[in-house]
Amino acid sequence: MAGLLHRRLRLRTALRWLSPLSTASPPAVVRTLPPGFSSSLLQTPRPGSCGVRCRELHAGGERPTPSPAATPERRPFSRVTPEDLAFFSKIIPGRTITDPDILEASNVDWLKSVRGFSEVLLRPQTTEEVSQILGYCNSRNLAVSPQGGNTGLVGGSVPVYDEIILSTALMNNVLNFDSVSGILSCQAGCVLESLSLYLEDRDYIMPLDLGAKGSCQIGGNVATNAGGLRLLRYGSLRGTVLGLEVVLADGKVLDCLATLRKDNTGYDLKQLFIGSEGTLGVITAVTILCPRKPKAVNVAFLGCESFEQLLQTFQLCRGMLGEILSAFEFLDRECMRLLNTHLKLANPITDCPFYIVIETSGSNPTHDEEKLHQFLEEAMTSSQVIDGTVATEEAKIKALWSLRERVTEALTHDGFTYKYDISLPVERIYQLVTDMREHLGDRAKSVVGYGHVGDGNLHLNITSPTKDPDLLASIEPFVYEWTARFQGSISAEHGLGLKKRNYIYYSKASLAVALMGNIKTMDP
Amino acid sequence: MAGLLHRRLRLRTALRWLSPLSTASPPAVVRTLPPGFSSSLLQTPRPGSCGVRCRELHAGGERPTPSPAATPERRPFSRVTPEDLAFFSKIIPGRTITDPDILEASNVDWLKSVRGFSEVLLRPQTTEEVSQILGYCNSRNLAVSPQGGNTGLVGGSVPVYDEIILSTALMNNVLNFDSVSGILSCQAGCVLESLSLYLEDRDYIMPLDLGAKGSCQIGGNVATNAGGLRLLRYGSLRGTVLGLEVVLADGKVLDCLATLRKDNTGYDLKQLFIGSEGTLGVITAVTILCPRKPKAVNVAFLGCESFEQLLQTFQLCRGMLGEILSAFEFLDRECMRLLNTHLKLANPITDCPFYIVIETSGSNPTHDEEKLHQFLEEAMTSSQVIDGTVATEEAKIKALWSLRERVTEALTHDGFTYKYDISLPVERIYQLVTDMREHLGDRAKSVVGYGHVGDGNLHLNITSPTKDPDLLASIEPFVYEWTARFQGSISAEHGLGLKKRNYIYYSKASLAVALMGNIKTMDP
Repeated sequence: MAGLLHRRLRLRTALRWLSPLSTASPPAVVRTLPPGFSSSLLQTPRPGSCGVRCRELHAGGERPTPSPAATPERRPFSRVTPEDLAFFSKIIPGRTITDPDILEASNVDWLKSVRGFSEVLLRPQTTEEVSQILGYCNSRNLAVSPQGGNTGLVGGSVPVYDEIILSTALMNNVLNFDSVSGILSCQAGCVLESLSLYLEDRDYIMPLDLGAKGSCQIGGNVATNAGGLRLLRYGSLRGTVLGLEVVLADGKVLDCLATLRKDNTGYDLKQLFIGSEGTLGVITAVTILCPRKPKAVNVAFLGCESFEQLLQTFQLCRGMLGEILSAFEFLDRECMRLLNTHLKLANPITDCPFYIVIETSGSNPTHDEEKLHQFLEEAMTSSQVIDGTVATEEAKIKALWSLRERVTEALTHDGFTYKYDISLPVERIYQLVTDMREHLGDRAKSVVGYGHVGDGNLHLNITSPTKDPDLLASIEPFVYEWTARFQGSISAEHGLGLKKRNYIYYSKASLAVALMGNIKTMDP
Repeated sequence: MAGLLHRRLRLRTALRWLSPLSTASPPAVVRTLPPGFSSSLLQTPRPGSCGVRCRELHAGGERPTPSPAATPERRPFSRVTPEDLAFFSKIIPGRTITDPDILEASNVDWLKSVRGFSEVLLRPQTTEEVSQILGYCNSRNLAVSPQGGNTGLVGGSVPVYDEIILSTALMNNVLNFDSVSGILSCQAGCVLESLSLYLEDRDYIMPLDLGAKGSCQIGGNVATNAGGLRLLRYGSLRGTVLGLEVVLADGKVLDCLATLRKDNTGYDLKQLFIGSEGTLGVITAVTILCPRKPKAVNVAFLGCESFEQLLQTFQLCRGMLGEILSAFEFLDRECMRLLNTHLKLANPITDCPFYIVIETSGSNPTHDEEKLHQFLEEAMTSSQVIDGTVATEEAKIKALWSLRERVTEALTHDGFTYKYDISLPVERIYQLVTDMREHLGDRAKSVVGYGHVGDGNLHLNITSPTKDPDLLASIEPFVYEWTARFQGSISAEHGLGLKKRNYIYYSKASLAVALMGNIKTMDP
């Protein structure tokens, strides 16, 4: 769960943010707009934000130019008093944490790129406790920052100032699993991998999978609309999440915890909370539709000479593997170099400019192997692929997958990393990497590209020996302008958090952002 | 597109509705709340509508009991003047219709169950025209009722009083199709079947299919979150619709017409419009992700002795057909009788209490036939299925499908039909039909059940020689109470429209309905 939860939603004024990395001493707690709503933008409503010309606004030239330095200011929230702590200790005895050593891990994000200064960490176990905590904070004008597994990459999972951290970590019970329908109901704090293991015993799988599965929590996955490795096959959480229970900022419990595949009675409110990064409420429980565990899984790791060949392979693959294709991922030669250097992972095939991870999941092992074999033969014969290896046993499958999944980790060893998560028409995705390399020249240590080809989602990462504001100034807004030119999204799956909030206008029309602001400030 | 569009969204007062079938002369135009928001409910806020007890509110006993007679009243909108008509004629020359004979078809729904009294039908061709019309109506305080193919089943697609009908029928251009990604962009008025034919030539298909495909429009499909026959395989429109363009009630154009599979920059506003039945704006364009045309399609029509056997067959089928299963539909013996009697369609197999339509779609004809054969052998051997026939050629496939698709049509010949579209845990769906038959005894002419087993979606239909208020009083609220007892939805895919709007509380918590009201009345 990312972002900041506000004491009340009746927020009508524009806000300013200070940088969380600012060395200025943090002036207590903030009341914020949703990620992406910077004060400077809201204070200067755009001309031409209505009528049919809106479409050009975010694709073309006319657009507010946000300053990367436009960061939030602490709003006049109360500070936590001993009486507040006494109240929390009474509601959740033994789970009101003030030990600075324990708080450290919750104040800093996984990338160690942003830091909050919270002095209180609350660990509720039930929805009722969350409701009591938020109701109290609302009455006391205390700011709250909800936190899941704290694995987010955009600085949205930690406080900015001294907000109270509300962790869902102890809300980790499975509530129900229906083995006929495959519908799982669970608390928000269940770790994704634990749910996967729970389901595997019952012949089902989670519809999503991502590198952070060992720590990330399902509530955070939903709050950030996590994509990951299975989206190509099972679709986004907007389709698989059937219900949510959410505690609103004033403590009211919104029950949309349906377990139905279809329900057309009124607006689908749960969609507002999916991907809202904790800005509209705290997700406390989730119901999700889980696919049957496939009877056969195969993974192929292939090498291509060019990105064009990689795309041809993708097209061939979609035609020949069809309904059993469950992932089509890629990494470039630079990624492989980092995996070799920093994690000592060996390349299982010939050195190539591009590598593909293809996964098939199906109900008939013989049919699946036959399809995969036919596809590989065709791909090799037509020289789209120059080398490759296939795995059918679990250990080898895991080893091949780790080449894709551990790129993020390898990058953290390469230096300070500037991370971009871009959605583009699939034929464009690698062009951004090439253009960025050319644009930066030798100013960057590494410029690497990997990601989800099947979803048109590029992870562009740029490393530098240390934090480098000059390098950053060369990357941004270049990367966002490039993306906007091709009608891409400046955040495909990571969300906006603190780091991308000022760039929403590169992907969203002014009117859309204004409507989001209205929803945020709506009375509950 | 269903429901009524309001002149302005700044609606803060509770409203009353009059029955559209009332014989009282219609007092001009209405300004309404979203379907489901009845005045009596809004005027009496429920105690206990906050806190953790909300979940019980819509599943258990404590609930406002709406009167089926709580229908809307015409609000004080302006009446259309000759000056208004002159303005419309200037914007859309030749497409401002006042001929009562032409208007008749737009004032009455497909089921001939509700009637409006509009005297103006507007047929814009572009988003700009829609924007100008709504901007003008907003300034003149004129009510507007958007209309797509007018195939809705809940009385949401026609005016209630004298609202201006805004038809999307002439907005029927394909804007773009990307044959690499399968992403289609088109205007809202494209007829579903035309899009299907357009895509078939390009080796793709639409991700949805429904009986009304020959008339229904994609804009209306999206506005009502249509489900249909392919949901089991390709998921709901919430996952496949990638972007929308919407004209808000004041004429502003909201551009969310993205063509990306992933975009996590702020709240997903398009989700608000999917399924909002025209109450928040007029959808003018859609981008949608289309699946590849399967290389092989097979259809099996099977018969079972009991609904329990049918469910066992479903489980077996999901395991053995896995990823190639694209539909699992059912109809009961009563449906078959109506098909025989009214449409002269012959039963291709032995007379049975239950019939199943199974469709497979896959990329390898040999593999698919092998899977289907193995499944059928197992189903027959284990006596789950007592008779069946399989089709692989298109003509026979169509003939088998028509047995399922034409039940609605057969019902219209059986008398006045009371239609219910219920979502339930799959193992419960037929119990409602049985209980209803017992409950009504010989008061109903026919009580039939059919629908989408794979989605837990029952279509319960009850016919009577003529409209029968006593029969209706026996059906409702019995059917809604029964559904609420098992946490079902009182409208799985048809929406609320005019007919179901008073029953939203059987499926949604009070707080959820209150939030919907806030969204409806939010300033744009």
